[in-house]
Amino acid sequence: MTFDLSAYLNEKRQRIEAALDHYLPPTDAVPQTLHESIRYSMLAPGKRLRPTLVIAAAEAVGGSAEAVMPTACALECIHVFSLIHDDLPCMDNDDYRRGRLTNHKVYGEAMALLAGDALLALAFQLIADNAAPAPADRVLQTLRLIAEASGTWGMVGGQVVDMQSQGQAVTPETLRYIHAHKTGALLTASVLAGALLAEASAAQIEALRAYGEHIGLAFQIADDILDVAGDEAKIGKPVGSDQKQDKATYVKLFGLEESRRRAHAEVEAALQALAPFDAKADPLRGIARYIVEREL
Amino acid sequence: MTFDLSAYLNEKRQRIEAALDHYLPPTDAVPQTLHESIRYSMLAPGKRLRPTLVIAAAEAVGGSAEAVMPTACALECIHVFSLIHDDLPCMDNDDYRRGRLTNHKVYGEAMALLAGDALLALAFQLIADNAAPAPADRVLQTLRLIAEASGTWGMVGGQVVDMQSQGQAVTPETLRYIHAHKTGALLTASVLAGALLAEASAAQIEALRAYGEHIGLAFQIADDILDVAGDEAKIGKPVGSDQKQDKATYVKLFGLEESRRRAHAEVEAALQALAPFDAKADPLRGIARYIVEREL
Repeated sequence: MTFDLSAYLNEKRQRIEAALDHYLPPTDAVPQTLHESIRYSMLAPGKRLRPTLVIAAAEAVGGSAEAVMPTACALECIHVFSLIHDDLPCMDNDDYRRGRLTNHKVYGEAMALLAGDALLALAFQLIADNAAPAPADRVLQTLRLIAEASGTWGMVGGQVVDMQSQGQAVTPETLRYIHAHKTGALLTASVLAGALLAEASAAQIEALRAYGEHIGLAFQIADDILDVAGDEAKIGKPVGSDQKQDKATYVKLFGLEESRRRAHAEVEAALQALAPFDAKADPLRGIARYIVEREL
Repeated sequence: MTFDLSAYLNEKRQRIEAALDHYLPPTDAVPQTLHESIRYSMLAPGKRLRPTLVIAAAEAVGGSAEAVMPTACALECIHVFSLIHDDLPCMDNDDYRRGRLTNHKVYGEAMALLAGDALLALAFQLIADNAAPAPADRVLQTLRLIAEASGTWGMVGGQVVDMQSQGQAVTPETLRYIHAHKTGALLTASVLAGALLAEASAAQIEALRAYGEHIGLAFQIADDILDVAGDEAKIGKPVGSDQKQDKATYVKLFGLEESRRRAHAEVEAALQALAPFDAKADPLRGIARYIVEREL
């Protein structure tokens, strides 16, 4: 029997969205508008890639989805926090996200700013509340790693360098820095969080770190490709927006063909890292392939 | 021998600022401008009230400043994150803070936004890294409480309701909500963090929670009074800015004299909560009095 990735992703997405609905502040609690704004962005249709990676990594080492669900939801909170802030007028100034008006276009800039802030705080509250049977020191280790991947040593750091590189000639090293930090850090942290909470061994953790880093890079290269060659309806934002903003991308630096080749090579390396794992890692294998096969 | 609050505050402030300098990302690491922006706001002159409360609460139950220093620094990071975001054009649009240009006036809106984001993530990284001899489950409990006090159930929630109340007729209940959440939650969390990490007993924690809530309220009433009756040079921003923005304040609702009476009553209640503690709580007692004696 071959592994059915589509069924797996659908099932996980439904469970994750039910959990998000449970963990997010309710709209009948003060301040209502803030909670509406948070839910508007959090419950917009999405792939739920990060929380799915938390779950798939936990399952790959024998853990359960249930036990890592609060942390899975936390990773989605951090991802959406970054999207809301990235879309603000002082950043990318985007009107649309996932095919819907961006948060600040609906709720105003101040509310969008605060919704992002609240989501980042909520993420750490959820991780600390983690119902996992993991010992407290594993939870702390997980939390530390996610905090590091979210701030200046990860996502925010990558965002700053990306912003500063707009309209500049960018070296391959800088591009790699941007991608490894802006997107890669949180994807890798998602994989490691699931593994840590499910009490993976040191060797398993190192293998999953390599997997996370390779799919992180593959994901960002694929995103760069989609921005020039994708389907607008599927990516939910106008094609060519990176070019318009003169952003540093793989396609700009290496061209479309070489970028495709590199994305596939990263996926191969990710699969290679999973070689010691049994069939419980099939979801991780499927996700790695899916990342470049989305539209390329 | 009477307790010398001024000497105590000075000594702690110096140790806190040395620790902040140690924990903040260095300006020679990428992205440099982000780190300069973070340090610009974090190392601006300040009272360091929150980190000092963490230390004083730990000392009150027999703990040491050293063991709670990373968490003390984390509380200052969260406080400064909120100041940077509050000052942004889409929020209060302030040009000055603590007598210096606000972060976005120096580094631009995008960098200020990201500096705040990075500080919030760094705060949780520092708490998770806490070198305290406290067991991991105490650290997790502390972290959870601080996360809750920072987001929609605390500071951010209070900020939203404050924002929505501008230009509105506000009930005493709403005003209390704003103050308890916007300022009180993080002050109370600071006191509780120190107590928890120093392994305070349940009875001590409840007493310190009451202390924290009373000084939180006293602090905000005092701030409202300072805004109309304070010394511009000392508060570092123009007198009357709350009135100009038609913000909900104690002075607006109850008048200057009744507000002064209430601030003093809160301090008395805070001191009462400390009755079971010995001389090791003298710094907490001194801080409670200092809050209303600053300029009133």
